[in-house]
Amino acid sequence: MIGIDWGTTSFRAYRLDAGGSVTDSTEHPGGILTVPPGGFPAALRAAIGPWLAAGERRVLLCGMVGSRQGWQEAPYLPCPAGPAEIAAAVVPLEFEGAACFLVPGLTARDAGGVPDVMRGEETKLVGLLPEIGAAEALACLPGTHSKWARLAGGRIAGFATQFTGETRAVLLQHSILGRLAEPGPESEAAFRRGLRRAREPGGLLHHLFGTRALGLMGDLAATETASYLSGLLIGHEVQAVTAEGLPPGPVHLAGSETLARAYALAFAEHGITHRRHADDIVARGLARIAETIAWP
Amino acid sequence: MIGIDWGTTSFRAYRLDAGGSVTDSTEHPGGILTVPPGGFPAALRAAIGPWLAAGERRVLLCGMVGSRQGWQEAPYLPCPAGPAEIAAAVVPLEFEGAACFLVPGLTARDAGGVPDVMRGEETKLVGLLPEIGAAEALACLPGTHSKWARLAGGRIAGFATQFTGETRAVLLQHSILGRLAEPGPESEAAFRRGLRRAREPGGLLHHLFGTRALGLMGDLAATETASYLSGLLIGHEVQAVTAEGLPPGPVHLAGSETLARAYALAFAEHGITHRRHADDIVARGLARIAETIAWP
Repeated sequence: MIGIDWGTTSFRAYRLDAGGSVTDSTEHPGGILTVPPGGFPAALRAAIGPWLAAGERRVLLCGMVGSRQGWQEAPYLPCPAGPAEIAAAVVPLEFEGAACFLVPGLTARDAGGVPDVMRGEETKLVGLLPEIGAAEALACLPGTHSKWARLAGGRIAGFATQFTGETRAVLLQHSILGRLAEPGPESEAAFRRGLRRAREPGGLLHHLFGTRALGLMGDLAATETASYLSGLLIGHEVQAVTAEGLPPGPVHLAGSETLARAYALAFAEHGITHRRHADDIVARGLARIAETIAWP
Repeated sequence: MIGIDWGTTSFRAYRLDAGGSVTDSTEHPGGILTVPPGGFPAALRAAIGPWLAAGERRVLLCGMVGSRQGWQEAPYLPCPAGPAEIAAAVVPLEFEGAACFLVPGLTARDAGGVPDVMRGEETKLVGLLPEIGAAEALACLPGTHSKWARLAGGRIAGFATQFTGETRAVLLQHSILGRLAEPGPESEAAFRRGLRRAREPGGLLHHLFGTRALGLMGDLAATETASYLSGLLIGHEVQAVTAEGLPPGPVHLAGSETLARAYALAFAEHGITHRRHADDIVARGLARIAETIAWP
């Protein structure tokens, strides 16, 4: 089969054997934002044509390709949901005679009744579940919109998104904080300083202005501003999540090398143990969901 | 005398009589960002020429005009500072034979030792002080960078800045939250809903993403997004400040009509009493500092 993670700005495809192992993979920068209206079948054909020609007939897609802005909308499935519920809710797509399905995103409501949504991360979480089993656990998938999911009984019980990565990006690119920043290597010392600052009183909005005041007073180098700001925001994120209580056992962390290292430092600052997982759990999740689908 | 508040994006000048009353005033949109290098004397002449021609010979300026990006830098004065300390630290300017001084900004350090800065607000606070006397009090000056100052003994004991207004602006203009927003009248209901949301667990970064999820799920109208976001951010600001404890008596609030109304709603949500002051306290502050200056 072919498994695909098609996000807003990225495209990753995996060719998987009957046991769910990746035998080939391909990656393009072309996320759904680069696809013209009606252009999804052609974009997919261009990306996986050789595998189709080699006889693959099953295609499973997850990510923003199933959103309103994507190929076709796959409605959000409410939590709790596991591989069985997700597989039962996949949405069929017309695509060149192949059996083709979209994985639905998930929705959850927090204690305040406010909804949350994910698309693509549910498949990564399904890929993580076999390593966790039925235990209660917390998973952290850092990114532009970091996802924190509570797992229990082999399903995704609920989750909450933190707007950390996008907040960092817009502040650096468009606010007065970015005007002080100069490019430089990532500074672990400045990042840790931001993490520690996040634990002090005053609130995130005060700490943000402090980044500027530190720069003005010569207490923070312009080349360290971006790392300090990352520490500040990730520190506030980890603090807000842990304030609600953690299940026993380590936090399960899966993300890019850079983000995973940053979050590992934040966990250490808070005395939280964690277990790092490979970033390609999405392929395992696609294989797991595919096992349960009633393919035509 | 002539008193001037010259900020990053605004210019306000007051003609004051010997008793400190405003006899005339003028306003321009031209903040210091619109002044070409070396252009400050000409810009000031254009704005207050008629008053100089009528015989005024004393000019006192406050605001970003005294910053590194302004006419000349007036170094920050450390808190605690009152009218006497501020008047003793004004910086003389060469300007067409008039006696001309710049009011210094203030700096303070918070409990974590991190510096904070203000320019222009110190003069507003001096304008407030006669109404407060020697009592311990908290003043709130909302704006792009909201200032919260602790007053005691007729001086500014310390202060903290909250990056609320600018955070709101960059999120609405440049983040995915703004892409959902549509222009509409300010909604007090949506603003209050944001205020209440800010009191729930999860943290600001989670609440921000919730704005998007509410929109996606049809739980928040696109025209209400901006008001909801204001409530969320101002709610987090007020909560962070009040978590550190409030002095007895009302919070002293001075700002534009729109912002003062918004903060008044936030105070009510938190059961905090407040007293509203006129927004033009800057003229009173300029007059008060001028009284203490040793004019040539």
